[in-house]
Parts: sequence; structure tokens; C-alpha cells
Amino acid sequence: MKEYTGLLSEKTMFFESDEPYRCELGGSLPSLQLAYRTWGTLNDRRDNVILVCHALTGSADADVWWEGLFSTGGAFDASRDFIICSNVLGSCYGTTGPVSINPLSGRHYGPDFPLITIRDMVHVQRRLLASLGIEKVKLAVGASLGGMQVLEWGFLYPDLVEALMPMGASGRHSAWCIAQSEAQRQAIYADRDWNNGWYSEDLPPARGLAAARMMAMCSYRSYENFRTRFGRELQHGTSFKAESYLHHQGRKLVERFDANTYVTLTKAMDMHDLARGRGVYEEVLGSMRLPVEILSISTDVLYPKEEQEELAKYMPNSRLLYLHEPYGHDAFLIDVETVSRMVREFLDRRALEAHPAA
Amino acid sequence: MKEYTGLLSEKTMFFESDEPYRCELGGSLPSLQLAYRTWGTLNDRRDNVILVCHALTGSADADVWWEGLFSTGGAFDASRDFIICSNVLGSCYGTTGPVSINPLSGRHYGPDFPLITIRDMVHVQRRLLASLGIEKVKLAVGASLGGMQVLEWGFLYPDLVEALMPMGASGRHSAWCIAQSEAQRQAIYADRDWNNGWYSEDLPPARGLAAARMMAMCSYRSYENFRTRFGRELQHGTSFKAESYLHHQGRKLVERFDANTYVTLTKAMDMHDLARGRGVYEEVLGSMRLPVEILSISTDVLYPKEEQEELAKYMPNSRLLYLHEPYGHDAFLIDVETVSRMVREFLDRRALEAHPAA
Repeated sequence: MKEYTGLLSEKTMFFESDEPYRCELGGSLPSLQLAYRTWGTLNDRRDNVILVCHALTGSADADVWWEGLFSTGGAFDASRDFIICSNVLGSCYGTTGPVSINPLSGRHYGPDFPLITIRDMVHVQRRLLASLGIEKVKLAVGASLGGMQVLEWGFLYPDLVEALMPMGASGRHSAWCIAQSEAQRQAIYADRDWNNGWYSEDLPPARGLAAARMMAMCSYRSYENFRTRFGRELQHGTSFKAESYLHHQGRKLVERFDANTYVTLTKAMDMHDLARGRGVYEEVLGSMRLPVEILSISTDVLYPKEEQEELAKYMPNSRLLYLHEPYGHDAFLIDVETVSRMVREFLDRRALEAHPAA
Repeated sequence: MKEYTGLLSEKTMFFESDEPYRCELGGSLPSLQLAYRTWGTLNDRRDNVILVCHALTGSADADVWWEGLFSTGGAFDASRDFIICSNVLGSCYGTTGPVSINPLSGRHYGPDFPLITIRDMVHVQRRLLASLGIEKVKLAVGASLGGMQVLEWGFLYPDLVEALMPMGASGRHSAWCIAQSEAQRQAIYADRDWNNGWYSEDLPPARGLAAARMMAMCSYRSYENFRTRFGRELQHGTSFKAESYLHHQGRKLVERFDANTYVTLTKAMDMHDLARGRGVYEEVLGSMRLPVEILSISTDVLYPKEEQEELAKYMPNSRLLYLHEPYGHDAFLIDVETVSRMVREFLDRRALEAHPAA
């Protein structure tokens, strides 16, 4: 398969594990590889770790897709923090996923890659941290799929992680999100080159994946964002700027992402439910003792603010913040100054609580 | 091509015109056919006509898709009104469109069907009314694409139509709507059987059209509607009810609708702009003298209430009503009792104004 790792920073490191991994919903992986990046230095007390979890099509290169958060005095300050970001299980940027070679068959997993969950992503990240000698994470932070991982970190490893900051995420994927995911997957399945997932590297289901991305882009933005950016302006002839923008977004994703991976990760998101196997949803949320700073994007079409308000209502040690810009879901990637400040303020408040009046 | 007219009522009538029709944006049609239905009797004064305009995948069979509005004392009362509904230009239910035979080539138009507009739809409806001797329409009413036609009726033939009732529609298609339309069209284009629109009757781009419909269904409903209907319930295995619902909707459309037609009509909607060639949008709205009863669906994701509020703000002789049920855009098809009452109240008020204190 296409080497998507060629798109990554040269500084990418790889964690390898020959211990088989049994997935939550059955299926197993004989071995694991995780791509990751770090910034800053792990201090002697090993207590300055910030774990960054990425969204659907992200990679370990957090300094690329979340560049605005990396700065002295900002959210991720390499002069004092040890920041780590790993590519999630099932992705195509250096971590075991559908484009990886299945050691049992000698060819890539493709559509045979098992159905995975957010919990699987967290468990394999935990292995990576253990290999680095990290037993304490002062903050797990991420948006969208990243926010789902952050929340699961709190439930799976509450003794390891000290604080959570999920953004633009829910505690369980809604029927609305599931429906949008499935419509996007169906566009991929419709593609002439899909071949039930056994497409060749040279002939991926590019049009279907592009159409899926175009749909997704609508849900990542907002009515207002499209209105102010494009209005009814024409690009050429009777083709609108809004259409050209979508075509561009579709092409860009096709160049850098794999269709089976898109299917795998969106299905993992659909399975996201903090209450699965843990009891009644509200009670599960109520059992969370960690401090949780919840960032809600007030114009989010996909994960509407009511979902974060529900998290805040039931999680006893939580606080709710809003991003009010009219960008929609993608605000966490756009309004980075505000996001960076909010993360740093949370970290500072946590530090003050730990060592009051130094 | 497939005979979609086989799906229609036996009572469907056909208007034929050998006079060529020149489309607004260029291109022309050597001849026209319009499928239509009527209910009730045209009175002697020929002043009891209600014109019903249908939405994207509708047909002349208004008594099927808007059954709840047909009743004695309801919106469409065949005991006193003469109700007429015709299948729009470009559709596949008996009116000239991509599935029709192009008399110049002897084969169906397919993707060669010209780019049409809402105004074209109205102009050819006007021909039909003329052929029936109708020079007065007491109310033009419709939702979504139907509402766009209603508004254009008011601008193109203000001396013929006496009152307008557009529902869940805007005065110009937003960048948001254009983007969603285009993402849906791209799913069709991605289909293995699309063949640039020259697919065969036996092998239509079914998966692409189904994926397009699934996306569209998300935009026709709302977060809340999906939540209450499906939640996170599974249908079987790890497949959710929300997914099964979409699959069902996709299959249903594929059985009854044509892909080139879907492309043609969504493009016509994207071209919708009351101000095209008429001046500044707000001033164009301000020039409307007819009484306009605007129905806004407060949970509409696709045509948000701000769009109808804008129409009401600038149209001097307008009134704004809301449907508040959490169904989303499709509320006009679901909350039919309320819609029927609202239409009848508008008609009654109009009658009272025409003949006060009889």
C-alpha cells in the first residue's frame, strides 16, 4: 500500500511490540507498531507529560495540525512540558492499521483489519507510554476523535492520567453522527475502484473517498462559515466557489489518506460509548472523579453543545468552556489562540491547586 | 430508460407542447411534456385554483406525498377548490427531463439535458395553466424546491398568482446548501456504473444515488429526530438502527428515482436566486407586493429559520409562521395537520379580505 508515512516528519519515532493485542470486540493483532512524536524533555520526576490525542485524519505530527498550540507560555510549552502524540491504532500514519502488513498473511490488512474501538486506541497508547517509562500524565487533551480518546483515558487509566480536556466531543456517538458516518462510508463503497476494500495502491477509491470528505467538510463547518466564506460567488461558469472548495478538500484528503482507514476509524467513532459495559450512561459519567475541562464549540453541527453540556452536568469535577466563533466543529483547528490559552489556563490552575502559594 | 411514470396514479394527465422551450441559461428543448393531476372542479369564475409545487423527488401525485393536506375543511378541499399539481421540468415522473427521449437524437437526454433553473420550471408550468384556461391562481404553495417555485411564481407572474405560501425555502440557495448538493452529486459521480451519466436502464448508479440520498436524509432531519428515533440501538451485530434506516431510504429512492434527474434538479436548486438579473437581493424582496405567508421550520438544518426570517423582513406584505416540531426540514411532510390548518387559515383570511362581512 501507499506509504503514507512518507508524509510525516523525519522526527517520527516508532514503538514496536511483538505482544499480540486482543481487540475489545474480538479479533486480534499479532503485533503492533505505533508512530509517535515528542517535544520537550521528560523531567526527573516524570510528571510533566501532556498527552495529545488526534482527530480522524490526524497524525502524530501535532506540531503541524495544531501548530498554534505550541509556544512558550502556550498550551504546549516544550521548555517545561514533555508533550507526546501518537498516531492512533487503525490509522495510516505509521501505526498498525489497514495499510499495514498483516504478519499472518504477508499482505496488508485492508478490509480484514478488525473492528476496533476508542478503548483499543487508548490501550495501545498505554503500551507506548509504559515503554517510555511514563506512569503519570498531567493532562490528556484532544478534540473530536481525540476528545473521545481523552474521555476513555479517564475511565480506563484513572490512576495514570491526572486531568482531561476533551473538545468538541461527546460521551457516546449520536445517531446523527452515526448516520453521517455511514452515508460517507456508502459513498466510498459506491466507488468503481472500491472492490470491497481490496483496491490496489495505484487505483484507490479516490472519488468515493473525496465525496465522503466533502460531506464530512459540510459537517465540520457551519451554515454561517460557508455563507461568509463563499456566499453565492461563482468560480467559473455555473460552478460555485463552495463547490471548488469542496473539490479541493476532497482531492487533498485522497492524496494523504486511505479509504479502508477512513472506514475503520469512523466505525470506531460510531462504537464510542463511555457507558458500554459500564452501566447507565449518566451514572458512568457521574463516577468520573478526575478534573475534566470540557470545551464546547457552540456552532458545532456534528457534536452539538448539548452533548458537552450533558457531560458537564453529570461529571462532578468538570468545568464547561465555550468556543463561540461561527466556524463549526473545526473551530478547534482555527481558533487556536483561544484554545491554546484555555489549555494553559487549565494547566496553570491545576499546578496552583497542587502547590498553592508556592 | 426506466418508466418511472409506471409509479404514478392512473389519473395522471399529460400536457404536450410542440413549441420549443428556450432555457434561461441557454440550451433548449424542442418540445415539452408535463405530467399533472387535478382535484375538484374549476368554477365558472375560474378563480378557485390552488397550485401545489412539489419538492426534489416529488411528483404530480400531491394526494400521495401530501395526503394529509387533502380534506374537507383542510388545506386542499376538492369540494370547493380546484387543486393542480404538475411534475416539474427536469423530473422523471412524466415531465420532460433526462429520462425523456430527445426528439433530435432519438435517445434519452441523459446527461445532455440542459442546465435548467427554477424559473424554467415556472415558465413551463405557466404554459400548462394557459392550456387549461387558467389565468388566476388564488394560492401557490409548496415546500423546499416547491417553495422556491412558489417564490419565483410571484416574481415571474405577479398578475396571475394572488398569494404565495413558501415553506422551508430560501430566496437564494446558500453556500451551505450548494456544498451539500455537490457532495451528494459527487457520490453519484463516484459510482462504478455512472459512466458520465450514460448508464443503462438495467445498471444505474444505484450505490452512488443511495449514498447521496443517505446524506440528504441527514440534512432533511435533525440531531434530535435521529436521537429520539434511533439513539444508539443496534439492528444486528454492530450495525446501528440509524444505519439500517438510511440503507432503507437509499434503496427506496433508487427504486423510484433517476440519477441524472437528481443531478439536474439539485443543480437547478443551486442556481435558485430571486435576485439573479433583478438587482440587489434585499431590494428585490422589497419589490414583492403579493401577500406572502412564509412557513419556517425552526429545526431546519438545510434552510435555517434565519433564511425565512430574512424573506419576511424584506417582503412588505408577508407574515412569518413557524413549525416548531423537532423533525427538521421534513416537518412539512410530517406535521401535516398543522401545515394543513395553516394553509386553510391563510386561504380563509384572504377570502375574508376579498369579501369582508359577506
